[in-house]
Amino acid sequence: EATEIAVIPGDGIGQEVVPAAVEVLEAVGDYAFTEAEAGDATLDETGEALPAETYDLAATADATLFGAAGESAADVILPLREAVGSFVNIRPARAYPGVDALRPETDLVFLRENTEGVYAGHEDRLTDDVSTLTRVVTESASRRLGAYACEYVQERPEHDGFTVAHKANVMRETDGLFRDTVLEEAERAGVDADTVLMDAFATRVCLDPEQFDVVVCPNLAGDVLSDLAAGLVGGLGLLPSANVGAERGLFEPVHGTAPDIAGEGVANPSATILSAAMLVESLGDDDAGAQIRTAVESVLSDGPRTPDLGGEATTREVTDAVLERL
Amino acid sequence: EATEIAVIPGDGIGQEVVPAAVEVLEAVGDYAFTEAEAGDATLDETGEALPAETYDLAATADATLFGAAGESAADVILPLREAVGSFVNIRPARAYPGVDALRPETDLVFLRENTEGVYAGHEDRLTDDVSTLTRVVTESASRRLGAYACEYVQERPEHDGFTVAHKANVMRETDGLFRDTVLEEAERAGVDADTVLMDAFATRVCLDPEQFDVVVCPNLAGDVLSDLAAGLVGGLGLLPSANVGAERGLFEPVHGTAPDIAGEGVANPSATILSAAMLVESLGDDDAGAQIRTAVESVLSDGPRTPDLGGEATTREVTDAVLERL
Ligand SMILES: CC(C)[C@H](C(=O)O)[C@@H](O)C(=O)O
Ligand SMILES: CC(C)[C@H](C(=O)O)[C@@H](O)C(=O)O
Repeated sequence: EATEIAVIPGDGIGQEVVPAAVEVLEAVGDYAFTEAEAGDATLDETGEALPAETYDLAATADATLFGAAGESAADVILPLREAVGSFVNIRPARAYPGVDALRPETDLVFLRENTEGVYAGHEDRLTDDVSTLTRVVTESASRRLGAYACEYVQERPEHDGFTVAHKANVMRETDGLFRDTVLEEAERAGVDADTVLMDAFATRVCLDPEQFDVVVCPNLAGDVLSDLAAGLVGGLGLLPSANVGAERGLFEPVHGTAPDIAGEGVANPSATILSAAMLVESLGDDDAGAQIRTAVESVLSDGPRTPDLGGEATTREVTDAVLERL
Repeated sequence: EATEIAVIPGDGIGQEVVPAAVEVLEAVGDYAFTEAEAGDATLDETGEALPAETYDLAATADATLFGAAGESAADVILPLREAVGSFVNIRPARAYPGVDALRPETDLVFLRENTEGVYAGHEDRLTDDVSTLTRVVTESASRRLGAYACEYVQERPEHDGFTVAHKANVMRETDGLFRDTVLEEAERAGVDADTVLMDAFATRVCLDPEQFDVVVCPNLAGDVLSDLAAGLVGGLGLLPSANVGAERGLFEPVHGTAPDIAGEGVANPSATILSAAMLVESLGDDDAGAQIRTAVESVLSDGPRTPDLGGEATTREVTDAVLERL
């Protein structure tokens, strides 16, 4: 039976870059694709940004490829992460040779906690004046992430440890629990680990990104610090991501719907194609993953470029170039 | 009666840069200085990082100049901000001509909410597994900050509006209240205001800092995003800050104790001297403020430089150069 991949293009350039990545997947393996709807357009048509069928599909497919959603992004992407049971969001942020980057030496991987923090937040309007949000950090989620981070670096000889980013000098109990538990897992596994305050990380990664490698973060810290790293490598257009669960995953570019260029056929498909590479790797197909990655890197270095990278090529032309170089 | 300035050098290079800034203050005005203790060394000696005398002094002096504190930083700086009744932390982040910066065109001012968010957080360890932090956002604090931001830009013709950074797509009630209330104040005052998600800000400020000017943030967002801006202008060594209250303020460099160079007499005093400029301005002495600022800028552009800026000058030499150019 063919592996089932759910495909959710969503809004804006999601409709352009996801089909491009599907073509690449078709070229490297034998997958059965099932498409489903989500996002602003779906909300307009059906009254729901994320219909139950789409949620259920992601919850049962072997893997899901997602594009982007507009205003309704949080109502789509957060439940989808939950649907696949994701506990870690992997966000590699590296500069590619031949692509303009503020810090071309940047080569980072963020492992972002994907279930709690302010995202699990229960909010209340206590009085006319006062609103609250209860941020949640559990030892179990921190331990699971810590164990995953240890495995991640142990399986990849190019990494020799990780850094825990946190704000435990202010959030003593919650981020203290996060930091200490992740460090405990590192110690148990014999993995090198150090820590950095998230504000200090923001300064230091700009000054010298090479001092960091794998960065393990609470949920919101991972959101903001990985987007900062995107700024150092030249923007969101090249960043893939993987929401990893125990049985399945959800793969998505870090960028959004890009309403300014949506519909013009000039969106950069690289981030979504690189997300597809992470997808096939999650299915155990490391060769296909490496093949896709090499082809994308080759096109980025001397192939056609979309306007975001200073070129004039279309999504179609870049996709064809990747397909040719597979 | 002379204006009373409380002076709290703290730990590490605080002991070097604060006396330098005091010399500059002595040169521009007639102030009575009272010194007090706080920080790691004070904790070791007295059992308290922030003795009651120091708190009381800051709570009653006309203004306070603070240096830095080590491990005990949060136990010193957060109560001191409260002692002066500060509701906004002003953090200008600009690149200076002649100083190496990743983005030399950066010229930003962060207005950071200074009383609540996760900093007002009540934390609990609910069970062995679960810890929580209650983040607090009030309409009244948001309104006060919003009104202050409007005044700030209206009094300074070089600014024509502000941007509210937030994460209201996830923290809908709390950051939603913050964002909407600040925008209401802008509308009432006729000040231009727009909004940006804090993660998008992190990417976009790296790609093009000139698209932003004054940035109004919740407490932790202001902490992290201003430290990010520090990375774009070449590090924390040049960033002053003002914790502004209704009656008095607390002025401090954004940098810390720099244990690697503490005691060597080579710390860069610029951030603290620029904080002293903000201090005298808060006392209504705009001329003295401008005088200090111009002298520091002049030294930064062609005067002696400390090692952090690639030079070999000492704190003493840089301070003398500033004094000469006043
Ligand atoms: C849309 C939003 C809820 C989401 C997040 O904050 O996780 C996005 O910023 C991301 O990082 O994928
Ligand atoms: C020391 C710490 C509590 C403090 C903060 O988070 O406000 C520091 O990072 C700062 O920004 O002045």
